[in-house]
Amino acid sequence: LDEEAMARAQAHLDDLTKPPGSLGTLETIARQLAGIKGEVPRRLSRKTHILMAGDHGVVAEGVSAFPQEVTPQMVLNFASGGAAINVLARHAGAELVLVDIGVAAELPDLPGLLKRKVAPGTANLARGPAMIREQAIAALEVGIEVANEKIAAGSELLGIGEMGIGNTTPSTAILAAFSGLPVEKITGRGTGIDDQRLQLKINAIRRGLEVNRPNPADPLDVLAKVGGLEIAGMAGVILAGAAARVPVLIDGFISGAAALVATRLAPGAKEYILASHLSEEPGHAAALELLGLKPMLTMQMRLGEGTGAALGMTMIEAAIKIYHEMATFSQAGVSGALDS
Amino acid sequence: LDEEAMARAQAHLDDLTKPPGSLGTLETIARQLAGIKGEVPRRLSRKTHILMAGDHGVVAEGVSAFPQEVTPQMVLNFASGGAAINVLARHAGAELVLVDIGVAAELPDLPGLLKRKVAPGTANLARGPAMIREQAIAALEVGIEVANEKIAAGSELLGIGEMGIGNTTPSTAILAAFSGLPVEKITGRGTGIDDQRLQLKINAIRRGLEVNRPNPADPLDVLAKVGGLEIAGMAGVILAGAAARVPVLIDGFISGAAALVATRLAPGAKEYILASHLSEEPGHAAALELLGLKPMLTMQMRLGEGTGAALGMTMIEAAIKIYHEMATFSQAGVSGALDS
Repeated sequence: LDEEAMARAQAHLDDLTKPPGSLGTLETIARQLAGIKGEVPRRLSRKTHILMAGDHGVVAEGVSAFPQEVTPQMVLNFASGGAAINVLARHAGAELVLVDIGVAAELPDLPGLLKRKVAPGTANLARGPAMIREQAIAALEVGIEVANEKIAAGSELLGIGEMGIGNTTPSTAILAAFSGLPVEKITGRGTGIDDQRLQLKINAIRRGLEVNRPNPADPLDVLAKVGGLEIAGMAGVILAGAAARVPVLIDGFISGAAALVATRLAPGAKEYILASHLSEEPGHAAALELLGLKPMLTMQMRLGEGTGAALGMTMIEAAIKIYHEMATFSQAGVSGALDS
Repeated sequence: LDEEAMARAQAHLDDLTKPPGSLGTLETIARQLAGIKGEVPRRLSRKTHILMAGDHGVVAEGVSAFPQEVTPQMVLNFASGGAAINVLARHAGAELVLVDIGVAAELPDLPGLLKRKVAPGTANLARGPAMIREQAIAALEVGIEVANEKIAAGSELLGIGEMGIGNTTPSTAILAAFSGLPVEKITGRGTGIDDQRLQLKINAIRRGLEVNRPNPADPLDVLAKVGGLEIAGMAGVILAGAAARVPVLIDGFISGAAALVATRLAPGAKEYILASHLSEEPGHAAALELLGLKPMLTMQMRLGEGTGAALGMTMIEAAIKIYHEMATFSQAGVSGALDS
């Protein structure tokens, strides 16, 4: 990050008519944007939310409350504008890009859908590797390419989100592999499974870690063996954003797992990531802690799709307005702090 | 609240294409709006942010990092549009109403400023009662009147905020009086005081509680003896909102203290309050806990003015859009949950 630009931004923030630091995360965001872009932009002329969809062989273990056909059904719903992310991306003024990176069904041509399928879903990670290493790399590359296309078209802020029935299972496995945290502590109910399915899910993750022995020192090994295609795609978006100096807003637990992969592959990428909300999935707080990121929102959400990231975009807009529209102490004739 | 309307809203929310409850607070907000208004409104045609300004005699104890003249200086800054709340109220599409309910200076006529001064600041609560009971009642009535004027003019959502150098001190005293929590645990650094001033602040609050012996069973007694004029005004806005079935969005610690007073005066008012952010002031979490409210935002803010409430308004807009714009399972042809 551009340390000089951050120091300039901080000096301006401290000169605005408020106690220093009192706008908290709004100030942190402005400073980070200055570090990324060299100055706090006047506005974000184009914001893009990239939604990666992929399926998971591990659903055969009974880990999800919803059947796998919901993944392609929801892609159709996204394309026709009726899902939560459509509403919230419109609310945030962001364009929505759908990517079929690994749906286990043939999808028709749909408005806004990029067909970049690497495989029709992953293999069952509880029985063997979810992907071969080449698939994981190909999925990362899809994310990088899609992000680069959008950045080339003028996007100045990327949000990420996902759709994939069963995908809190690989996300939990990734977190467990990197953190060593006990699986039962970080496994949640995803879309809302009952106790019986929760136990199946914990068992599947444990078995996946035992069978595959992912090597935490080799992030690609973790991603391939216990990850997912849409997780790899989102990690690719983060890597591309960091390389092009474009901030990437992550969503909940699954995009948090993607951020773990991306920052293990390229630790410097962390500076380009912003955290949006704290999800209800128990592993998310642990993932954010590992990433060293603080969430903006505690909306008790656990939907995915990037719904939290879309809401977070409105906070980034607010931070930019604060930076450029507030008066300074001298402009407003307001007294500064007393000496003690 | 209208329980039937809430049940209807819940049924609609559960039919939208997402796992039940997965949009968390967005769903809670929609349900609460249904309970308040009889249905989830299609839009909020008018949103009003009411900012109450008042001064505090307790600043004589050295409890604040800023001199008292900052209160009127900031009112001038609000009137000319340069403060944080101006930027964030614009961001939220809310009109901003300034109320001089107790500034310790004569203010000129200013655009958007309502002159309803009850007294030129409170007395020093560390040496005796901050207000006589009649002043506290008069300040409550100002809040009720201003809110009623705005509701009559069509406002469908009220936000509250404040300006008053020293006002985390009475807020802490109010929380201590109602909760019995130890003063040193809930006293924070306000605008950013050092250790020395923090000790002066703790001493002033303790002395105020000893000297005045506010009776927690008599909320007006607490408000008068250790409260403030702008805190009373904000409590009045909450009472008026509840009476007229208009939701009131509170801000941080000081408006939280006002909400404690309002809900002790009229427990049913709680159903009309929405919490926006969790402030950095240590007493705020305790106040929200007592109120039984959960914040939407964790932006590490501690500015006041209603800046958190203004950001919270954008979440309420998002909740309304989610309710009205998402597709249902049957509309989108998406499968529901499996049996276990």
